Amino acid sequence: MAGKKVLIVYAHQEPRSFNATLKNVAVEELSRQGCTVTVSDLYAMGFEPRATRSDITGALSNPESFSYGVEMHEAFKRRALTRDIAAEQKKVQEADLVIFQRKLALLSLTTGGVASMYTKAGDNGDFRYFLWPLQHGTLHFCGFKVLAPQISFAPEYSSKEERKAMVASWAQRLKSLWQEEPIQCSPPWYFGQ
Amino acid sequence: MAGKKVLIVYAHQEPRSFNATLKNVAVEELSRQGCTVTVSDLYAMGFEPRATRSDITGALSNPESFSYGVEMHEAFKRRALTRDIAAEQKKVQEADLVIFQRKLALLSLTTGGVASMYTKAGDNGDFRYFLWPLQHGTLHFCGFKVLAPQISFAPEYSSKEERKAMVASWAQRLKSLWQEEPIQCSPPWYFGQ
Repeated sequence: MAGKKVLIVYAHQEPRSFNATLKNVAVEELSRQGCTVTVSDLYAMGFEPRATRSDITGALSNPESFSYGVEMHEAFKRRALTRDIAAEQKKVQEADLVIFQRKLALLSLTTGGVASMYTKAGDNGDFRYFLWPLQHGTLHFCGFKVLAPQISFAPEYSSKEERKAMVASWAQRLKSLWQEEPIQCSPPWYFGQ
Repeated sequence: MAGKKVLIVYAHQEPRSFNATLKNVAVEELSRQGCTVTVSDLYAMGFEPRATRSDITGALSNPESFSYGVEMHEAFKRRALTRDIAAEQKKVQEADLVIFQRKLALLSLTTGGVASMYTKAGDNGDFRYFLWPLQHGTLHFCGFKVLAPQISFAPEYSSKEERKAMVASWAQRLKSLWQEEPIQCSPPWYFGQ
């Protein structure tokens, strides 16, 4: 939808990967719709994933006993977070839609195993089970409305044609993404009744 | 049990934290039993959590298109993993018991929220839900027999007496840890029938 801001949080190292293709398709389709698309390419940025006191500039509010949660809250209020964190927070705040594009995370993800392994009877259990901590515990908790995940199962074990079909289905979905209703992000969605 | 090797994987920054106390209690009790206890203190070691090509020394088997899984498997076979990873793998291999001591991970963990929030009807859902990806998807998948988790709920919001009781209950459990049967690590344990 023209004028919308989209942030794609992308975490894959190889520009020639299937993941990269899915990300590129999203950039192209959404830009074509007139959206402003920003990509946070975490590996390329060397984004620091460790949560440490280095995330805070200046003095700590309680240097005697370090509590990451308390210090981050204080630092957020006095704008004392490091520049890389503040920059990502700004992108999230400004975005109308955030797409997380990575292996085994959410919204748009690829799996190692085939679809049958991610069913209630499969070795990995229903794919919704592993979405719970991130999609519900993190995104929903932080106030996101969550759209249905886009799961591309086992590109590694799929034929070239199957991979093409997965990319096409993603591209097709993106065309009408703005008309989608968010999922009912509550336990029954994940675990049934 | 005398002669057993225990590895504690510990991830907390503050030596005066409740987490540190739980870790110290485990070191003391298990050493008293005659176990050899090793602690991998991930923050203190500055352990690198990013999975990148820097984990591999020497040439890649396919530099054209980097696949972390493939390259790590090859590097493992030809002993070309970086020293920090090889060292941790050796510790895990030699250990009879591995205790993961960190926030929101497994076996011995502390939570931010109180116990009622981690029930089926609570905001966070049953605490077993968030154990699924790590305890089942990672530990069980890698061949561990998994002991019941030790969950210390909301030490931040507990009284000094309550925290003492949590530490005491952990210390008490450690005394007979070697007689425990592993849990039945399968979907019913996590999600019921």
